[in-house]
Amino acid sequence: MKGIEKTLIRQIHDKADSSFVNLGLGQPSFSTPSSLLNQIRENIHKWNLGYSPNAGFPELRELIAKHSGTNISPHQVCVTVGAEEALHALLMVTVDPGDEVLIPDPGFPAYESLVRVAGGSPRKYPLLSENDFSLNHLDVSNKVTPKTKVILINSPNNPTGAVYSHGELEKLAEFIKKKDILVVSDEVYNELYYEEKPVSVADFLPGSAMINSLSKTFSMTGWRLGWCVGPSELIQLIIKFNQLAVICAPVISQKAGLFALKGLADQEIKANLKEMHQRRETAMRCMKEFTDLDYVKPQGAFYVWVDVRRHMEKQGGSLDISLKLLSKEKLVTIPGVAFGKGGEGYLRISFAADPASIKEGIQRLGRFFKD
Amino acid sequence: MKGIEKTLIRQIHDKADSSFVNLGLGQPSFSTPSSLLNQIRENIHKWNLGYSPNAGFPELRELIAKHSGTNISPHQVCVTVGAEEALHALLMVTVDPGDEVLIPDPGFPAYESLVRVAGGSPRKYPLLSENDFSLNHLDVSNKVTPKTKVILINSPNNPTGAVYSHGELEKLAEFIKKKDILVVSDEVYNELYYEEKPVSVADFLPGSAMINSLSKTFSMTGWRLGWCVGPSELIQLIIKFNQLAVICAPVISQKAGLFALKGLADQEIKANLKEMHQRRETAMRCMKEFTDLDYVKPQGAFYVWVDVRRHMEKQGGSLDISLKLLSKEKLVTIPGVAFGKGGEGYLRISFAADPASIKEGIQRLGRFFKD
Repeated sequence: MKGIEKTLIRQIHDKADSSFVNLGLGQPSFSTPSSLLNQIRENIHKWNLGYSPNAGFPELRELIAKHSGTNISPHQVCVTVGAEEALHALLMVTVDPGDEVLIPDPGFPAYESLVRVAGGSPRKYPLLSENDFSLNHLDVSNKVTPKTKVILINSPNNPTGAVYSHGELEKLAEFIKKKDILVVSDEVYNELYYEEKPVSVADFLPGSAMINSLSKTFSMTGWRLGWCVGPSELIQLIIKFNQLAVICAPVISQKAGLFALKGLADQEIKANLKEMHQRRETAMRCMKEFTDLDYVKPQGAFYVWVDVRRHMEKQGGSLDISLKLLSKEKLVTIPGVAFGKGGEGYLRISFAADPASIKEGIQRLGRFFKD
Repeated sequence: MKGIEKTLIRQIHDKADSSFVNLGLGQPSFSTPSSLLNQIRENIHKWNLGYSPNAGFPELRELIAKHSGTNISPHQVCVTVGAEEALHALLMVTVDPGDEVLIPDPGFPAYESLVRVAGGSPRKYPLLSENDFSLNHLDVSNKVTPKTKVILINSPNNPTGAVYSHGELEKLAEFIKKKDILVVSDEVYNELYYEEKPVSVADFLPGSAMINSLSKTFSMTGWRLGWCVGPSELIQLIIKFNQLAVICAPVISQKAGLFALKGLADQEIKANLKEMHQRRETAMRCMKEFTDLDYVKPQGAFYVWVDVRRHMEKQGGSLDISLKLLSKEKLVTIPGVAFGKGGEGYLRISFAADPASIKEGIQRLGRFFKD
């Protein structure tokens, strides 16, 4: 742990206060759907708020199983403290010292640290600008060695907003099929897409694990409710780990999860999604209107992946640029290098913020580079 | 993880259903105080339910610091997903392969597994029947080797209900003072005591870590809110680990924790404590009235530690006896051996159950041994 630094994302946020325009957000600005809050309010006095089973309430596991695909049994589900704990548990029970775990570059920074915490060796596969940061199966399979134990796939992708193509995922699955490698599909953004509906690599590779949560879809980040779906033997290990590490996911959040997955908040979620589509349009329009920067057109999640490579000679790397945007423009952006070397030359800006902030923030971004 | 079995406690509970008399409970039968539930109901629509800081809300850290002793700063506090995650995080950031961690025998079964998960070697120090299972400092110091990194102390104790004496803890602290060993004091039962107020080993050893939670004191086990208090450098590591493993403790539980530690539920808690004193009296009276079994007089927590050694020749070990009580008497008890070899010959029965169950359960216990 001593070698693991506070993430750049946190370091950047620590330098900002509420007077800043914040396009660094990793969570939607929406509130938790009021239909769910109403249920809490009406029922909290009636519920037994003691421990749940370690794997979560059976009814919730059943709903998650249904929600995750066809022919998935509740025994293949463990409810966790958000997707983060699902990933931690999964790596802790899967990875032995010396095992290699393939992770994307650029990619969510916790992946690398969580692999190290579990005693494994992170190895990065590239997501390349020439592919609009979408997955090319050869870039992954080229990195596989006899020590590869796990491959992590994240589509829709944080930070790039890419959604991987059916064809590439299928080819990757074909390659892995004969190998003793667990594929872990981090799908926390899979309900947030703007063009093609995301495909899960697990559709082509039934022994895979899928990780998801209420956080992004239902605007419930602080509730800490996620899950892992996978082969029963793997899930049994995760349940045992869950008992040791956290006993069970928070019970009120599980109760809210029951209502959420039964569809009680569907109308609010639909409205939020529509709003997110509009914010994406706003962000893209502002990028064109106020800047001359290129960016990767977001297909999923809520990030615009902005190309600042041609300004690097004058302004320095993405971290320098982010820090200057903080101090000169009071604008929070996340430097691409926070997601690995493969993210250098890019900034991640979030359109999970409200439209006024998106507009004002991108104006400041344009002003900065025009100076 | 493959070597870590489902705990005997879970195995026993899995064999019972709601028609059984359950004296196996590790949580009070009380509801979460309604004063706290009212606050949730009134405010949940107003709160921002996004992520909190990784270490928890600053105001909550401040209250926990005040609650934990004098001269403790909020920077010495990390809020966690119950005491269990505090312990997991603490061991993960402290223990390197080969390090020894001293844990009590009998003791809470997760200790041993959590040490193994962190890559350490658990070594047990005995709590002896001749001392009524209270701590003798020599039994701990005798087990210290150059590899000892952490010593875990649990008073009031689960499963025995013992509260360790001031003198023994002070002598142990004196011994450890000059050594590079972290003492971790698991104090989750420290508000549940019936005679002397429990003393924390940390009072004599300022560099120690203390672990606590809302679970037992406030009847909030399912809320998953705990904390670790310790030296700032250690807490910094735990905060980083917390970010990786769970991001933050559940936000609604943190909100409830604010009200709880401000004293909003004090009247209800006082009434619950009074009731717990009465249940203890009930349990002891029933033990005398319905059985001829010896037991350790509970000084803290909510367990009667029942001596069944003289029945072992006829009935088998504590696990056999527990299983027979399940099948013949439909009574849930926890076999002492679930807490380690040092617990063999004992049963843990809980007076956290309602008085009618306590009475009926102990009657069945007596009947079983009279047959």
